[in-house]
Amino acid sequence: MVNENEIIDKLIKGDIKLHEIEKHTENADQAVEIRRKFAEQISGAELKNISNYSIDMEPVSKKNIENPIGAIQIPLGIAGPLKVKGDHANGEFYVPLATSEGALVASVNRGCSVISVSGGVTAKILDDKMTRAPVLKAKSVSDAIQIKSWIQEHFSELKKAAEVTTRHGKLVKIDPIFVVGKYVYPRFVYTTGDSMGMNMVTIATDSALNLLTHKTGVHVVALSGNVCVDKKPSSLNLVEGRGKSITAEVVVPRDIVKNKLKTTSEAIVEVNTAKNLIGSAVAGSLGFNAQYANMIGAIFLATGQDEAHIVEGSMGITTAMEEENGDLYFSVTLPDVPLATYGGGTSLETARECLEMIDCYGNQKVHKFAEIVAGTVLAGELSLLGALAAGHLARAHKDLGRA
Amino acid sequence: MVNENEIIDKLIKGDIKLHEIEKHTENADQAVEIRRKFAEQISGAELKNISNYSIDMEPVSKKNIENPIGAIQIPLGIAGPLKVKGDHANGEFYVPLATSEGALVASVNRGCSVISVSGGVTAKILDDKMTRAPVLKAKSVSDAIQIKSWIQEHFSELKKAAEVTTRHGKLVKIDPIFVVGKYVYPRFVYTTGDSMGMNMVTIATDSALNLLTHKTGVHVVALSGNVCVDKKPSSLNLVEGRGKSITAEVVVPRDIVKNKLKTTSEAIVEVNTAKNLIGSAVAGSLGFNAQYANMIGAIFLATGQDEAHIVEGSMGITTAMEEENGDLYFSVTLPDVPLATYGGGTSLETARECLEMIDCYGNQKVHKFAEIVAGTVLAGELSLLGALAAGHLARAHKDLGRA
Amino acid sequence: MVNENEIIDKLIKGDIKLHEIEKHTENADQAVEIRRKFAEQISGAELKNISNYSIDMEPVSKKNIENPIGAIQIPLGIAGPLKVKGDHANGEFYVPLATSEGALVASVNRGCSVISVSGGVTAKILDDKMTRAPVLKAKSVSDAIQIKSWIQEHFSELKKAAEVTTRHGKLVKIDPIFVVGKYVYPRFVYTTGDSMGMNMVTIATDSALNLLTHKTGVHVVALSGNVCVDKKPSSLNLVEGRGKSITAEVVVPRDIVKNKLKTTSEAIVEVNTAKNLIGSAVAGSLGFNAQYANMIGAIFLATGQDEAHIVEGSMGITTAMEEENGDLYFSVTLPDVPLATYGGGTSLETARECLEMIDCYGNQKVHKFAEIVAGTVLAGELSLLGALAAGHLARAHKDLGRA
Amino acid sequence: MVNENEIIDKLIKGDIKLHEIEKHTENADQAVEIRRKFAEQISGAELKNISNYSIDMEPVSKKNIENPIGAIQIPLGIAGPLKVKGDHANGEFYVPLATSEGALVASVNRGCSVISVSGGVTAKILDDKMTRAPVLKAKSVSDAIQIKSWIQEHFSELKKAAEVTTRHGKLVKIDPIFVVGKYVYPRFVYTTGDSMGMNMVTIATDSALNLLTHKTGVHVVALSGNVCVDKKPSSLNLVEGRGKSITAEVVVPRDIVKNKLKTTSEAIVEVNTAKNLIGSAVAGSLGFNAQYANMIGAIFLATGQDEAHIVEGSMGITTAMEEENGDLYFSVTLPDVPLATYGGGTSLETARECLEMIDCYGNQKVHKFAEIVAGTVLAGELSLLGALAAGHLARAHKDLGRA
Repeated sequence: MVNENEIIDKLIKGDIKLHEIEKHTENADQAVEIRRKFAEQISGAELKNISNYSIDMEPVSKKNIENPIGAIQIPLGIAGPLKVKGDHANGEFYVPLATSEGALVASVNRGCSVISVSGGVTAKILDDKMTRAPVLKAKSVSDAIQIKSWIQEHFSELKKAAEVTTRHGKLVKIDPIFVVGKYVYPRFVYTTGDSMGMNMVTIATDSALNLLTHKTGVHVVALSGNVCVDKKPSSLNLVEGRGKSITAEVVVPRDIVKNKLKTTSEAIVEVNTAKNLIGSAVAGSLGFNAQYANMIGAIFLATGQDEAHIVEGSMGITTAMEEENGDLYFSVTLPDVPLATYGGGTSLETARECLEMIDCYGNQKVHKFAEIVAGTVLAGELSLLGALAAGHLARAHKDLGRA
Repeated sequence: MVNENEIIDKLIKGDIKLHEIEKHTENADQAVEIRRKFAEQISGAELKNISNYSIDMEPVSKKNIENPIGAIQIPLGIAGPLKVKGDHANGEFYVPLATSEGALVASVNRGCSVISVSGGVTAKILDDKMTRAPVLKAKSVSDAIQIKSWIQEHFSELKKAAEVTTRHGKLVKIDPIFVVGKYVYPRFVYTTGDSMGMNMVTIATDSALNLLTHKTGVHVVALSGNVCVDKKPSSLNLVEGRGKSITAEVVVPRDIVKNKLKTTSEAIVEVNTAKNLIGSAVAGSLGFNAQYANMIGAIFLATGQDEAHIVEGSMGITTAMEEENGDLYFSVTLPDVPLATYGGGTSLETARECLEMIDCYGNQKVHKFAEIVAGTVLAGELSLLGALAAGHLARAHKDLGRA
Repeated sequence: MVNENEIIDKLIKGDIKLHEIEKHTENADQAVEIRRKFAEQISGAELKNISNYSIDMEPVSKKNIENPIGAIQIPLGIAGPLKVKGDHANGEFYVPLATSEGALVASVNRGCSVISVSGGVTAKILDDKMTRAPVLKAKSVSDAIQIKSWIQEHFSELKKAAEVTTRHGKLVKIDPIFVVGKYVYPRFVYTTGDSMGMNMVTIATDSALNLLTHKTGVHVVALSGNVCVDKKPSSLNLVEGRGKSITAEVVVPRDIVKNKLKTTSEAIVEVNTAKNLIGSAVAGSLGFNAQYANMIGAIFLATGQDEAHIVEGSMGITTAMEEENGDLYFSVTLPDVPLATYGGGTSLETARECLEMIDCYGNQKVHKFAEIVAGTVLAGELSLLGALAAGHLARAHKDLGRA
Repeated sequence: MVNENEIIDKLIKGDIKLHEIEKHTENADQAVEIRRKFAEQISGAELKNISNYSIDMEPVSKKNIENPIGAIQIPLGIAGPLKVKGDHANGEFYVPLATSEGALVASVNRGCSVISVSGGVTAKILDDKMTRAPVLKAKSVSDAIQIKSWIQEHFSELKKAAEVTTRHGKLVKIDPIFVVGKYVYPRFVYTTGDSMGMNMVTIATDSALNLLTHKTGVHVVALSGNVCVDKKPSSLNLVEGRGKSITAEVVVPRDIVKNKLKTTSEAIVEVNTAKNLIGSAVAGSLGFNAQYANMIGAIFLATGQDEAHIVEGSMGITTAMEEENGDLYFSVTLPDVPLATYGGGTSLETARECLEMIDCYGNQKVHKFAEIVAGTVLAGELSLLGALAAGHLARAHKDLGRA
């Protein structure tokens, strides 16, 4: 039988380390409780809400976290119905959004409403891939060029070596291969099915590198050389894409722009140009949009995606045009959205429930999910640009009133 | 008395809208329950874990979320003790990290351990500010230049107009002011105390703009012109900073690099140069680091920061140098980390508990918190670079073995 | 008396080095001739056009070039009259353009013509400065922050130390000061009068650094730390400006767009949005324009500016809007154009003649010159966008013809 | 017989336009003279050096310039011998450099000298291509994706349509094809032989577009959509390359670093890291180097390359490493250097002579030329970093002297 206080004492004295508690306990929950009590004693804080979790700590403490002390809670709201017309998602969805930023769900909800009366949002997958790019060190520039050639000429062998490690991962290409002095950065590009795939492609690439180093003697400086580019904003991913490259569009009739968004197509076009295009250009930004990160963030947390990938999902470009009849054409394009409907955080109970709410949990669902994400981003983006433009018009009216 | 089924029926028929449920219920929890049941009926999914929350929905549904149906849970672990030597944080801390990415907490924990035996991590605040930059439209380039001059000459009036709206916000400067053709982008720079401050500076800037438009007749195209730059990666913020600009450093003795990180200072320096500097340069990345986003993400979720701000926190530069005696000098610099210890998501019960664990909840705590964040980022970054370098050496040994 | 053949023989044998010829000759021209004959012998090429120069080699071989063998010729054309309405340039100018790219002068000329019938181009100086940013190395992050503070607190002393080295240079500020780990990058910002000023600010900054190192013991790693940013494209300069920050605008009446540019305001606006804004965003470009580099290049070569500064002048943003009456509003903004009307290459005979053609040689002329440059860039940019849009319309007509 | 004064009078009155002079004259030189005299009268400037040219104005005024009034002169120096070990260039070369920036030729010359005693510089071609990317407008996102598919599926037809317009141009691929909302940006990638190729690929792409629009009805917004990316700095070209992608390396023995560069390998490595890597990262620069633009500029002007392409040649990355024995490994990588040995400005007499000096004029020479350019850039870059590092050491000594 476990004596909680004894273990806590030993933790405080340093006789047991934080990650060793599980060795002395009967199950994960007990370890969590002891570790949390230790944290309470050390800090003097009372951690009772953190202790209120329903997720199953057995698998979680093996796969998702170390040194667990419980769980945090983030409020979950829904926006919808979002009417999506995609190749994989077709119909109306109530989108789960986890956030503590007031007004975000309401903003998306308003966008969904405008979309509905406009006949729905068209959503599309432009590309789908996951990448890993190690950095190698050759003996010289000449050697580096030979390594590059060797990789290009032995693609099928490297593909075989990579794919023995995975059932779902397929190596599609190794391209581009950058040479900078002695350093070589080959970008391994995979498809990964319904998993987000970072672990999968890391293991597969490591396996391919074993073959490469064995055959050529090239030296692996690091398994990731930052031209993957994982969890950092980058022009490379904006250009080449990573994860799911997605886009969505809607045409909002002129009178709906007027009555629901309280502005005009022309005003929204100007806000998009002055803010999302010119403003972002001035700022040297990779996000030519207003708030993709908000929607990507809220849907990522709700559905168990990797929170650090919000960074990549913040990049992309919004376009707005006035059609000849005064209707508003509006689109969002996100080239770099890593997504999963299986594995990783998606198996957490609440994440799974959120995915199930939109029928996107498990196999063969990730493209459907991607299209819903694209539609959701458009809903939030349209709503915010409309609000900014309406403030704009409001001010214009006031300004004129001065005269 | 409320009839749940009746409301759900009306929701399904569209007679009541999602956000109107609260009008028909007695308290927030009831509204949450009805809305969740509606979601279950519509989707066929069972949402029982989402219903398991302990946060108080009354304030949450007013300030943090709309259309709530419950809460999500994300596993929470702790890493530490992290020994911090800062101007505001001094001592050992167990850092709360919320994530579903296995190995992350372990990695930070290993970094904390290396830091401890190296005598602690020095952490510093470089700068502290929050910004909002509207886009204005003048009548011409000449007019735009006059608007710019007017702003510069009437700073104290604009400051007064901005500050009437806030107790804690102080307008520090309006600089730079970009002119692009007719458009003018003045960057309003504030200090915001212990709040993250985005709402505060938005309201204050709106107030200042009322004065500006009244006096000059300039037209406000949008209250945000994307040179703020909020929630988008940008060179401007990398250069000028936003939120808390923080840095941390440690000197790891040579034998600790060898015995705990299983590599050499030289190898870590090469990984940093080849991956974080050259690799990121090749990729056109704004993140000259390995994984800041992972640590920023996990600590942000644990402590109720805005998840979309992870984007900004992913930018920054890691440096590594071999000292003359073979010790490793290692630093992280993050110019753009919006942080709060008060307001927004920090008042969520689990977030507050996490902040209390490190004695960082409430007033006069945000600088302490910022230094702990800097130290945590360094811990994770050092650990990963060490692991990559060790793999590197392992391979080098294998390669040599071939000969 | 000089024996040419003897010297050439010694050059071939390596007994005399290339740069030592002047020691053995009576004047610069003789040295040039011997060196050129040596080059002819070595390569077998006949270099008779290179020998045809009228510039005075005495001063040139002391100040502008080493190892001279003559001069190259680049065709010089003129475009105009360009009607400029500036604060410093007012009137009509024939702009000298040196290029071998056919159609460039014609394109600018067409733009000048459109400008003339539209009443002229308004040109303005937004800012004027030259920068140098060394990289310093402190002992630690704490020390780095102290160095930064020291610089801020002793600005007037550093200013005095900098300005003893120059008559025309004035140190305006040292800002921003970036800290990255141990490294400190203070950006010294000067005004430099009619000189471009790079040498001036380099010498002045070196002098200030002598004081800084003497007082603080900080170590200067390099006199330039690449945050100047000299001759490299950079977001920093796009944002902060460098050299002359200039802008120009014109309103082209609707019927002139139709009759002279053979297109519509709407079509030009769309080309600008799709190409200069969205296209450049996709490409991760710092040039949100069509061809600034062409005009900057041709006017720089004609007037003796530093050719490597064309890089900086290629950055900037073009805006185009349709006015309510259908007229075209069009502007160019170039934040980073290093310019001189005195010193450096401007004293070359042909450069001076080109500057004199527009009455811009010598003192008190650089702002006038900057405005003419801005107007010239607008002329070329407008002409090209018009041509692209006209092709666009032409194709639209053809496309319709298919139906 | 031509009456000069009469024509000048008409020019002044506006009865003849500047570009119409050739209609009234017997040969190009006469037109040049009249136009120059007109410029003299209008401006009051004396343009006698501009009139001193030996280039043949007949072909020049048809192909290279409009409205010619003469030529400018830029001093030409030589640096060398530069010992190159390439696949195409092998041997010692005296490199022609045209500049008015004092010390540049001397700096390159010093680099050549260090290279010679180090056994030569290895230079390599990494890639060779020229690109043009129009912007197309589809009816919708769905249509845009279909256009993209059509292009991919009909590559061989588009290739045939493109290549009918050119003898030397070959369409290699159309990739990437970016979709942003309705807009489609296909990047046409060609090889262009010894010509720089911009005109060639523009005409070829226009021809392919005729087929594309005829078959699909897609609308061409502009023949260039700025993802080419021509004459603008861009991450895309840094990543994907354009023109000649070139690299060069040298290993400088430790004692040569000491005796000729007056510094140490370690000091040069630190300058490279602190300035070229970290400094450029801070500044959001696309040039991770010290002065590529200087060498690219001087060699471009000497050899008749397009001056606006200096912009692209300024991008690239310098690496420096200390070898185990203390030797210095040093490399330059320039992914985007548009070059020609035939056509365009290379046929100007002085440009041709400069190319002949290094045996690079005409067909089958452009790869040789590219390798010499790479070696020249390395020479200048090495020399400057050495000088900065030596100043660095000098200061370190002085600093120590204080103690």
